[in-house]
Amino acid sequence: MSTLPSWLLVPGLAGTAGRVVLPQEAAHHLARVCRARAGDHVTATDGAGTVADLELESVTAVVAARVVALGRLARPSQAWVLCGAPEGTRGDWLVEKLAELGVARFQPLDCDRAVWRGARLDRWSKLAAAALGQSRQAWLMEVAAPATIERALAAVPPGASCWLASAGGKSLAAPPKAPAMSVVAVGPASGFGAGEIQALEARGFTSIRLARSRLRTETAALAWAGIWAARTASEA
Amino acid sequence: MSTLPSWLLVPGLAGTAGRVVLPQEAAHHLARVCRARAGDHVTATDGAGTVADLELESVTAVVAARVVALGRLARPSQAWVLCGAPEGTRGDWLVEKLAELGVARFQPLDCDRAVWRGARLDRWSKLAAAALGQSRQAWLMEVAAPATIERALAAVPPGASCWLASAGGKSLAAPPKAPAMSVVAVGPASGFGAGEIQALEARGFTSIRLARSRLRTETAALAWAGIWAARTASEA
Repeated sequence: MSTLPSWLLVPGLAGTAGRVVLPQEAAHHLARVCRARAGDHVTATDGAGTVADLELESVTAVVAARVVALGRLARPSQAWVLCGAPEGTRGDWLVEKLAELGVARFQPLDCDRAVWRGARLDRWSKLAAAALGQSRQAWLMEVAAPATIERALAAVPPGASCWLASAGGKSLAAPPKAPAMSVVAVGPASGFGAGEIQALEARGFTSIRLARSRLRTETAALAWAGIWAARTASEA
Repeated sequence: MSTLPSWLLVPGLAGTAGRVVLPQEAAHHLARVCRARAGDHVTATDGAGTVADLELESVTAVVAARVVALGRLARPSQAWVLCGAPEGTRGDWLVEKLAELGVARFQPLDCDRAVWRGARLDRWSKLAAAALGQSRQAWLMEVAAPATIERALAAVPPGASCWLASAGGKSLAAPPKAPAMSVVAVGPASGFGAGEIQALEARGFTSIRLARSRLRTETAALAWAGIWAARTASEA
């Protein structure tokens, strides 16, 4: 049983047998932030579905642990968020919140009217890793490099349930069902161009209205993720 | 027809007849940020349901406008968010996002385990006013002073639909219905105390699970507001 509140991200965890030396960042977190001691238990994950119960053996500059139990979780249904650039530096908060809510992939969109000038992939990956531990999840959110809609759509698997956040869309009387994969596209602060909307609609994206009010880019993305997360909470 | 993208908050708008001199902040916004000119139209609201179409007559240090049309909107269903203190300075973002989503009242909760040390009511009221204009809403979010659960519950009207965000709650298979008023209570980062949960349950708050993952205070509040906003978008 874990005696520490957050989960630890330990890449390569699935291949370990019996004993694991924790990566430096996790070791630092345990020793300095959690003030962990030998004998404490912690839940670890590789961010790819493996979850382990670890018992800390030594907590010094190096932290070693015994693998008490190790299991593999089936991948739950996934959400992808394809998102144009918001105003200012709102990307950081957005990434943290989407990761907390369990989104599988964050795909920044470079659009006709706005590109991501503030894309900080290294920082965002760290935020996603921190959110994974904080929110106790076994699947790390992937942070993709900015791409055009055309390239982003090419990666969307067939059969995905696809939604376009739009003030002019039909209202979402029921939340999106949770098939194996749900995808939302959210325009940049200046909105999608006409050609981009055509491309999304041609790919089967359905326009939905997320609120009575006009939402900012990052708010629309978060609101959709909140609806998706509530819908999938019943799977667990 | 409005030629400017955001709405203006003009207190006292309902009592004006024919012509209005805009408050200094709105005048500054029009002249400096929007670079508005005489002849431009703008939508104004008093934040209490009155909406007007204004035609700017002069844009100098003082901005005067002609009231072209003035109407009153019926109050849509309301959401209140009773919220414990999140970690750090996450309150600002939370207030902005709740206001954008159309929440009627933000009630910070001072709880057994955590009080709002960073409550900045003046700043939050300004953020709520800015979000009203940005998101084009006729109702200003009220920012209440921090209160205990006991005092906050005393203000909840009878008949409200009441929800308690809880990782141990039942999953929210359908989004909360949208009766005249919906209220959610979200614990602080350290969680509600047992007595507080008892008080909420005694008042009819139903525990709901908002996601598979464990959500931070501000994320749970936003996720719930997103679900509520989508549910009420069909009213408009």
